[in-house]
Amino acid sequence: MSVNHQDIISTQPFPKSKKIYITGSRPDIKVPMREISLSDTLLENGQNKPNQAVIVYDTSGAYTDPEITININNGLKDIRSAWIKERNDTEILANVTSKYGQARQTNPELNAIRFKQHALPRRAKTGKNVTQLHYARQGIITPEMEFVAIRENQRLKDVTDSQLLAQHPGKSFGANIPKEITSEFVREEIARGRAIIPANINHLELEPVIIGRNFLVKINANIGNSATTSSIEEEIEKMVWSIRWGGDTVMDLSTGNHIHETREWILRNSPVPIGTVPIYQALEKVEGKIEELTWELFRDTLIEQAEQGVDYFTIHAGMRLAHVPLTAKRLTGIVSRGGSIMAKWCLIHHQESFLYSHFEETCEIMQAYDVSFSLGDGLRPGSIADANDAAQFAELETLGELTKIAWQHDVQTMIEGPGHVPMHLIKENMEKQLTECDEAPFYTLGPLINDISPGYDHIASSIGAAMIGWYGCAMLCYVTPKEHLGLPDKHDVREGIITYKIAAHAADLAKGHPGSQYRDNAISKARFEFRWEDQFNLGLDPIRAQEFHDKSLPKESAKIAHFCSMCGPHFCAMKITQDVRNYAENKGIEDVDLAIEQGLKEKASQFKQQGGKI
Amino acid sequence: MSVNHQDIISTQPFPKSKKIYITGSRPDIKVPMREISLSDTLLENGQNKPNQAVIVYDTSGAYTDPEITININNGLKDIRSAWIKERNDTEILANVTSKYGQARQTNPELNAIRFKQHALPRRAKTGKNVTQLHYARQGIITPEMEFVAIRENQRLKDVTDSQLLAQHPGKSFGANIPKEITSEFVREEIARGRAIIPANINHLELEPVIIGRNFLVKINANIGNSATTSSIEEEIEKMVWSIRWGGDTVMDLSTGNHIHETREWILRNSPVPIGTVPIYQALEKVEGKIEELTWELFRDTLIEQAEQGVDYFTIHAGMRLAHVPLTAKRLTGIVSRGGSIMAKWCLIHHQESFLYSHFEETCEIMQAYDVSFSLGDGLRPGSIADANDAAQFAELETLGELTKIAWQHDVQTMIEGPGHVPMHLIKENMEKQLTECDEAPFYTLGPLINDISPGYDHIASSIGAAMIGWYGCAMLCYVTPKEHLGLPDKHDVREGIITYKIAAHAADLAKGHPGSQYRDNAISKARFEFRWEDQFNLGLDPIRAQEFHDKSLPKESAKIAHFCSMCGPHFCAMKITQDVRNYAENKGIEDVDLAIEQGLKEKASQFKQQGGKI
Repeated sequence: MSVNHQDIISTQPFPKSKKIYITGSRPDIKVPMREISLSDTLLENGQNKPNQAVIVYDTSGAYTDPEITININNGLKDIRSAWIKERNDTEILANVTSKYGQARQTNPELNAIRFKQHALPRRAKTGKNVTQLHYARQGIITPEMEFVAIRENQRLKDVTDSQLLAQHPGKSFGANIPKEITSEFVREEIARGRAIIPANINHLELEPVIIGRNFLVKINANIGNSATTSSIEEEIEKMVWSIRWGGDTVMDLSTGNHIHETREWILRNSPVPIGTVPIYQALEKVEGKIEELTWELFRDTLIEQAEQGVDYFTIHAGMRLAHVPLTAKRLTGIVSRGGSIMAKWCLIHHQESFLYSHFEETCEIMQAYDVSFSLGDGLRPGSIADANDAAQFAELETLGELTKIAWQHDVQTMIEGPGHVPMHLIKENMEKQLTECDEAPFYTLGPLINDISPGYDHIASSIGAAMIGWYGCAMLCYVTPKEHLGLPDKHDVREGIITYKIAAHAADLAKGHPGSQYRDNAISKARFEFRWEDQFNLGLDPIRAQEFHDKSLPKESAKIAHFCSMCGPHFCAMKITQDVRNYAENKGIEDVDLAIEQGLKEKASQFKQQGGKI
Repeated sequence: MSVNHQDIISTQPFPKSKKIYITGSRPDIKVPMREISLSDTLLENGQNKPNQAVIVYDTSGAYTDPEITININNGLKDIRSAWIKERNDTEILANVTSKYGQARQTNPELNAIRFKQHALPRRAKTGKNVTQLHYARQGIITPEMEFVAIRENQRLKDVTDSQLLAQHPGKSFGANIPKEITSEFVREEIARGRAIIPANINHLELEPVIIGRNFLVKINANIGNSATTSSIEEEIEKMVWSIRWGGDTVMDLSTGNHIHETREWILRNSPVPIGTVPIYQALEKVEGKIEELTWELFRDTLIEQAEQGVDYFTIHAGMRLAHVPLTAKRLTGIVSRGGSIMAKWCLIHHQESFLYSHFEETCEIMQAYDVSFSLGDGLRPGSIADANDAAQFAELETLGELTKIAWQHDVQTMIEGPGHVPMHLIKENMEKQLTECDEAPFYTLGPLINDISPGYDHIASSIGAAMIGWYGCAMLCYVTPKEHLGLPDKHDVREGIITYKIAAHAADLAKGHPGSQYRDNAISKARFEFRWEDQFNLGLDPIRAQEFHDKSLPKESAKIAHFCSMCGPHFCAMKITQDVRNYAENKGIEDVDLAIEQGLKEKASQFKQQGGKI
């Protein structure tokens, strides 16, 4: 298939934004960032003072770089094959290994929709382990590690206005984030199991990203079709759209036809890690008959997807037969798809889940391609009533066991979490996860802090997400306004992602992540100086900010007006404050000093009255 | 003016919802509630089991009661005049007292827009104090107190399914909420200053509402025009629209022409407490010339509005001359309108704020009409950088002083709070407010937990709002998506209100407010049983939930489908769980017992290994 994407794929850069690349220790480490140029500050004396451009983390890949011609038929540029090749521990296979993959490759009916350019898969040489965790434990700093170190720093050391770097000390709950992220720090965190870089050796187009409590909080966006069929261009655009607004990783949850082929197209065009839930496809292969699922079929699916380049697999291996009855008295039983599939399988066969019993074999597959585990929470609560119950925590304990087994195999591992949890029970989730899973990164859905807001559950869940991110969660899985109701459209995806960017950023601020307040300070300064365009462009969604503003003050001239539409010229608080400040600075400085003095005297006297010493 | 409201005022009840009234100890205490009827549960044996209708708190007034004919020219029914009259401590005045009010009344140009039916104002007899706080301290339970006691209980004692009343114990941070709210408890809380019932004796249409940390968390919606002029019907509709979606109080922040007349129309048609910021109107009266503001002018404005029936006044009396210079080095100076007006006034005149120096005279006005204080936070932070700084907390300390003075006059008082505050600094705000203001109700704007989300600040602020509500805040002032950008339209108002209903409800759940989980349990049960319509109707916004669902599964039949659009029939987790449960209940019960036994043995053995005793 040759696809003309022109009308479908979003490729415009953001207003006043430019893609820049920071080169690392070798010329082929080029870390993308987004530079937002700002207008000048208009000083009282009529002169202009320039404002330094602000550099922000950029997940959008080549799609926002006008220098690069996007052609989804070719896929994105190969970034990583030299890095992988020179490690000399992998080999290119003569053919795909999985039976299913072979069958798809030779099926002439699929010629029309198959991605043409795909290279043969790569796998670890026999006896080799090719995970970032394995390298880290050997003391090796990979290019992937250096890439994420540069990326996390967001070029903060080049900021010239130290006032804009001021920030509140955070409350980190045991997170330990250095002022500058070094490659060695990245290596240590990975070696410790406290962070992962999901980076399958067959995903050469990847711009590596790190997930861990001592790094910027990340967010995931889900895409995928089910009942409806959508074209492959549309599926790719879903991914592009998700990363455009800030998705750090994307999970492809498709359950329709041609998911093998669609996945290939997505991977070849994705600069972010792609995650999947392989049991969904396995179930497709047995036409939804849960009882027919087998370890062999599942294993073939893992290999099929690993050889395509999927970066992390959600595997619900922590839900054991013995846990199932713990859900019988729940208000909402089992709401995870993966969890309920496996629960039913366990009961039908009255056997332990094959995901659990074959876990070590799974680890061996993961380490041969560096697929990371995202250990699924099949028993996450589907209602406030079921939060933090015996079923949920029994599974979490098993996930802790499995984490240690995965680590024995040097397989990178993160842990999935709830679900519906009221605010006051969120911290217990985070603390238990840190304890049971020995600080392996936590990756949570929400949590949703109430059940009564269908249509607004992106908001309800962002409250829980921000809090759990603060407490130590490493990645937040977004929720869209359609949660519980239907499939999200593009508007919903954008809404869900920006909502989760807010939650992740709020968490960074509260943890005191070094430099996290810089963008807030820059936008606040712009806001206070009536630099409207700068306020829009520094925001998470410049397009919407501008649209909303234009609805009230539509003219171009209004964007440099020294008042805003809420108050009009008489009432603008910011305008008045500027007057107050000028007054204090120019005419009234003695009065102000007097006032301060009086104020201090009074405070001191009060303080003394309350028994204090000065 | 005679207004035809038919096309403008929203009067439809919600789907499957019925207005009911609970009669109190006397026939004229009739407390409105909304009863949502539910469909039957379809049992496995093919029979139907009815589900009890769910009763929820209802702020929407007569507008959602089809039995009542709405005519905004007449205003709403008088609810309170008998209650006020029989207290025998007020008198009807021969004319309005304020000079401005008199001038407006006799101005023939205003005939066309004046509300016709307004009765003469009522005021305390000389030497009398007519506040709910005064009565409470005398040991008197007023009809207003009984009304809110009935209202807060939401008829929970009639719920027949005790499982639906199950809930998590909360974490209340010192809140102390009884299982059933009695009139005596209401009286005690008001006497203690820990709660207020904003209920001006001239607002006879009011359905009383209580604001305090030991009651359901409330939300406020702001309405008002500024640059643009809108018709009076449209202004009334803004209020009606706000309470339709759940606004517990409404602040009229209008700054345009005819605000006196518009306010009259709003009050006569409002079942919820109306708050204002009188300094805005005072400034209008001097055509925006801050230097011309005087105590006398302000005083006349207070009386003018008090005699119209405004229930609470935001007065920025805590911002003193000495505080102003504390803001000079802030990133975003003073962002409160009231705060910046008074700061400028203080500097121009180099005098203490007349709001502070005339505070006791203000108290005397408030107690003669029972207007409640909402002591404004003129120095709230306008950016993350300025959060919790010396200026903000100095003002809060002064607000604490003023609270005690207001209480000496038996004037009901709440305190306004921030603003922009990162998550980890929110608790300090709440704790300091409780300490300084001796548990007087806190009423906060957000707080916004970051600065970088223009266009989505309702979401960013709801995160802070939910948290501060949990920590003890009594009322949350909503923020709309247009915050920082422009004036909200109807869509924005609905979005802002539902977002804040989520935050308030999340706070109730986390505090462990008795019965707060009932609606969550009911909707979760409906969701789990595929009672789609019930899920929509039990949600905060039934209309949107239904719309969103219909976009994916548009047919009527789909709403009773035993699967949902996200997964389709094979993959529906809930369907599978139902199968699991049936299996456990019917066929597999022995297997399940065995599994539990095995699971417990294993757990016990693990537990022993870890050194535990059984």
